[in-house]
Amino acid sequence: MFAIAITLLAIEITVPIVDSTRGSDLADALLHQWPSYVAYAVTFFIVGAYWINHHRMFFLLRGVDHTFLILNILCLMAIAIIPFPNAVVAEYLTDPALRGVAAALYGLAMLMLAIMFNVVWWYADLRGLFRVDVDKAKVRKVLRTYLTGPVIYLIGLVISMWAPTVSLIIYFVVPFGYLFEGPVGEIDEGYIEMEG
Amino acid sequence: MFAIAITLLAIEITVPIVDSTRGSDLADALLHQWPSYVAYAVTFFIVGAYWINHHRMFFLLRGVDHTFLILNILCLMAIAIIPFPNAVVAEYLTDPALRGVAAALYGLAMLMLAIMFNVVWWYADLRGLFRVDVDKAKVRKVLRTYLTGPVIYLIGLVISMWAPTVSLIIYFVVPFGYLFEGPVGEIDEGYIEMEG
Amino acid sequence: MFAIAITLLAIEITVPIVDSTRGSDLADALLHQWPSYVAYAVTFFIVGAYWINHHRMFFLLRGVDHTFLILNILCLMAIAIIPFPNAVVAEYLTDPALRGVAAALYGLAMLMLAIMFNVVWWYADLRGLFRVDVDKAKVRKVLRTYLTGPVIYLIGLVISMWAPTVSLIIYFVVPFGYLFEGPVGEIDEGYIEMEG
Amino acid sequence: MFAIAITLLAIEITVPIVDSTRGSDLADALLHQWPSYVAYAVTFFIVGAYWINHHRMFFLLRGVDHTFLILNILCLMAIAIIPFPNAVVAEYLTDPALRGVAAALYGLAMLMLAIMFNVVWWYADLRGLFRVDVDKAKVRKVLRTYLTGPVIYLIGLVISMWAPTVSLIIYFVVPFGYLFEGPVGEIDEGYIEMEG
Repeated sequence: MFAIAITLLAIEITVPIVDSTRGSDLADALLHQWPSYVAYAVTFFIVGAYWINHHRMFFLLRGVDHTFLILNILCLMAIAIIPFPNAVVAEYLTDPALRGVAAALYGLAMLMLAIMFNVVWWYADLRGLFRVDVDKAKVRKVLRTYLTGPVIYLIGLVISMWAPTVSLIIYFVVPFGYLFEGPVGEIDEGYIEMEG
Repeated sequence: MFAIAITLLAIEITVPIVDSTRGSDLADALLHQWPSYVAYAVTFFIVGAYWINHHRMFFLLRGVDHTFLILNILCLMAIAIIPFPNAVVAEYLTDPALRGVAAALYGLAMLMLAIMFNVVWWYADLRGLFRVDVDKAKVRKVLRTYLTGPVIYLIGLVISMWAPTVSLIIYFVVPFGYLFEGPVGEIDEGYIEMEG
Repeated sequence: MFAIAITLLAIEITVPIVDSTRGSDLADALLHQWPSYVAYAVTFFIVGAYWINHHRMFFLLRGVDHTFLILNILCLMAIAIIPFPNAVVAEYLTDPALRGVAAALYGLAMLMLAIMFNVVWWYADLRGLFRVDVDKAKVRKVLRTYLTGPVIYLIGLVISMWAPTVSLIIYFVVPFGYLFEGPVGEIDEGYIEMEG
Repeated sequence: MFAIAITLLAIEITVPIVDSTRGSDLADALLHQWPSYVAYAVTFFIVGAYWINHHRMFFLLRGVDHTFLILNILCLMAIAIIPFPNAVVAEYLTDPALRGVAAALYGLAMLMLAIMFNVVWWYADLRGLFRVDVDKAKVRKVLRTYLTGPVIYLIGLVISMWAPTVSLIIYFVVPFGYLFEGPVGEIDEGYIEMEG
């Protein structure tokens, strides 16, 4: 599911059609699409990081109930829409007049995703869906770090209205936080055993 | 499979191309696409709910036979076509003259899906494909609730011919029924144990 | 993999754009696309039947070797291209002058798929990749029925050059053969036990 | 993931629209698209070969850590973008003036993929993520053969600037190397046991 949404991001990068006898014109047209490449890389990395975290948390569950499945569908709905705001940002990133609206849309989509991600995993905690051998205090510590997501994207969304460039930088810097393992590593001790 | 069809729903939401120096024009163009967002959310939720139910029922099977596999392919065929009627409704939802036909097409697609879903699971019951430890009376109770699907979509389809708005409201209200667990929860006792 | 190729078939069915105040014009435009619906249903069913057979055969393997994996990639290559000839047939089915070429392309794609499918499974047999408890005589019986595929599509391909309608009917009738289980059912005794 | 990227390659092959009463015009238009078919087949085979190797290496792991997962996301990012350079090569392969730039873009994308693939698996080796029963000397031998990938694509990339045809031939000949098993077969002894 995450894999499909993430792979569809590349579909939006189109082949530039140049009618020229000079190779430099095609090179220019390809370079001119740099916002598409940046948006692809950043969004791919953000969604990929959600994927890793979602997957690791799932391993800690003892089971799921109906409400969890419904909330998970809503979380997937927020994931699957991401190619749309990603394409809007890629289209209007270089337009000073319009990138504010594009940044706000992107921030709104990321905010919804961050909220749904939190709802799913806080619900799992509140309903006791984690395995009994999983340290409850450590799960809470992980869940509290997840709360930073909605806060950051809400700040970015508010800022986007008068300083779109700053908000875009915020969105694009967030992924670097994912380079560090965070508290989830304390629960599964840095290793996820292979399935099977 | 369900995941792929559901993710492809977002592809249909296109980036509006505005040639303007005012951000409000892009915002207007994005808001103007609201039927696409509504159709995405509603259809995603309906197909997601089918996914959950299909998955839970599969866990109750002891095995499958050739006819089950063929019927399942036909059910998947009805799932995979959904992005098409979804896109037609998104395109013509705001056009009073044309939304009746769009609503009828959507209702027809949903009716076929609901019928195939019933055919697959009633067949599984009639051929005794459920595990011996699964309570047959409870399975029947679940299957009877599934029968409401074709009935509702048939009513919606008939109504769409002279009151398209009413039929669309019917389709869009149906998903809220999925918020409640229904009798399938009585079989697997509200929890689906994790695989592996 | 099969699932992805099969789901992408629906992408090709586009929303007709009508500029009219009469619902009947949209209905006409939708009905006018009937070749797309027929092609979708037929191709989905054919690929779905390959999927079932591929899956059932895989269950009989004790392992795979490098050549098997390479051949399997070539078979998947033949599967993944199918949306293209399918779209060509949908586009030109109603054009008497051009449907011959479309039918030939479709037949060629199906012939390649049928050949690769046979190559994969005959190779598995020749290299002894099936489990020791699987009856070799019965596997051969299954493999011999698979040989009918390339023969039928080769006949269709030859006929398409002067009688495209007949060849299309041949392609479209073939799937009905899949409604019957065939000899593979004798090996796994009509039931595939659930995984896990 | 590999499967999705690989299947999306076929989407780029479009139906030629001919307005003619002669079948030979459609046949010509279809044949005229030969660069799309060649690019599809070559790229599919290259990515398919990466898929096989990635899968076989995964089977040798005892577990993964956070950095491995992050590197794997970056490797998947390099995989998922492949349909884009593939489409650029298909579009400009027959244009002598522009194919140099297209060949360079393709080489660059393949170089990034080859580098990320090496980074993922060398990291796994350095961090001791392989199972204890896996012969470390043989793993090193496999990893050293993987180093040829970046070298070949770097050579192709450099050559593409003044001899694009030669660089394209290099890219297109590389896949034939995958027909031979290579040292990974020495580790899992030519057979990958079925899962489950």
